[in-house]
Amino acid sequence: MFITFEGIEGCGKSTQTEFLRDYLEGLGYSVLVTLEPGGSRLGVELRRMLLSLESDDLTREAELFLYLADRAQHVHQVIRPALEAGRIVISDRFTHSTLAYQGYGREMGVDALQEMNIMAVDGTVPDITFLLDLPPETGLRRALGRNMEKNLTSSEGRFEAEALEFHVRVRQGYLELASRKKEKIVVLDAQALPETVFQGVVGKVNEIMKIDKKCVDNANCKV
Amino acid sequence: MFITFEGIEGCGKSTQTEFLRDYLEGLGYSVLVTLEPGGSRLGVELRRMLLSLESDDLTREAELFLYLADRAQHVHQVIRPALEAGRIVISDRFTHSTLAYQGYGREMGVDALQEMNIMAVDGTVPDITFLLDLPPETGLRRALGRNMEKNLTSSEGRFEAEALEFHVRVRQGYLELASRKKEKIVVLDAQALPETVFQGVVGKVNEIMKIDKKCVDNANCKV
Repeated sequence: MFITFEGIEGCGKSTQTEFLRDYLEGLGYSVLVTLEPGGSRLGVELRRMLLSLESDDLTREAELFLYLADRAQHVHQVIRPALEAGRIVISDRFTHSTLAYQGYGREMGVDALQEMNIMAVDGTVPDITFLLDLPPETGLRRALGRNMEKNLTSSEGRFEAEALEFHVRVRQGYLELASRKKEKIVVLDAQALPETVFQGVVGKVNEIMKIDKKCVDNANCKV
Repeated sequence: MFITFEGIEGCGKSTQTEFLRDYLEGLGYSVLVTLEPGGSRLGVELRRMLLSLESDDLTREAELFLYLADRAQHVHQVIRPALEAGRIVISDRFTHSTLAYQGYGREMGVDALQEMNIMAVDGTVPDITFLLDLPPETGLRRALGRNMEKNLTSSEGRFEAEALEFHVRVRQGYLELASRKKEKIVVLDAQALPETVFQGVVGKVNEIMKIDKKCVDNANCKV
């Protein structure tokens, strides 16, 4: 079971990821939470290159290929071994981020990027993707607040520093991707309270994994 | 004028690059000598990732995308600005390295990689490419000697550490590419003395650049 969370900066991906991990671990599953960029040894170095404000000289093509390198390494070294060991993998960002940010945001087109994603993931695709949707103004306000709180403004602020129109294109791209693959991408309103958003996540996960809701509510009932 | 040198490890690319630079500068041209990986600010970091023996966990897909990122940045930030300023650019490795090493050496196929090269270089292609051809046994012996001399064994030895069959596929790949594009790739026997190899280089460069050989030999004649 491979689950990914997608959405613009500040949409609450990491919160939902943690909620879902706690929920599934509570049911006795072994869960691996990971992220892009940065999920592998190499990825940690690539994350710094990609998100740092120092990389303001990065061309859009170099940016694209660095994300793909991060993904290829992440899949081969982290995600696939965990799935093969029977664990549930939850990733904060995956293939749809490339389509939304580089394809729509940087206006590089989606078709060629799809082909490159296919080469990078080599057959490892999510069972379900949650798109946490909200207006860019709201997301950016949240993300900038978080970055300042965690002192990440210069080390991870490159995308937050993009113009609002960029983030509007990314959001629109995500929604277009979701409308094309309704059975694989669940859109949730991320303006709602985190607990409310999580009801949407858990409902879908229960359905796919055939987890009996009554059973979950009953502490004496083993899944 | 954009000239690239290609070939397996130890074929003498850097020697020929220096010879050609000296020759063209002697004629009054402004020349930029550069290399891949590592020709840009970002590229220096990528070169370390790509060539270090510490990167023995790198998957072939991640390796491919890191080379493409290096190339995209190199073209946009270094090669194209120099060409636009009227300089001659000589690069030690370029697009054919990806086709030979990843396409043939790693057996990833050439067609998909061609498409990715096209995206990375965004229209900037060499006027002429010199393939310095020699048997891998000879090249590897030279390259390992050089690495030991320069104390580069662990920092730049990842490709030299590949099996001989890998280098045989790379060489064969290069020769196939050259046979398909005879007008753009000149194959030179790199087992000859460096000065002899350079006669082949300079002959072709004079022809393309319409440099009059008699004029070059006559110190009183301005080109």
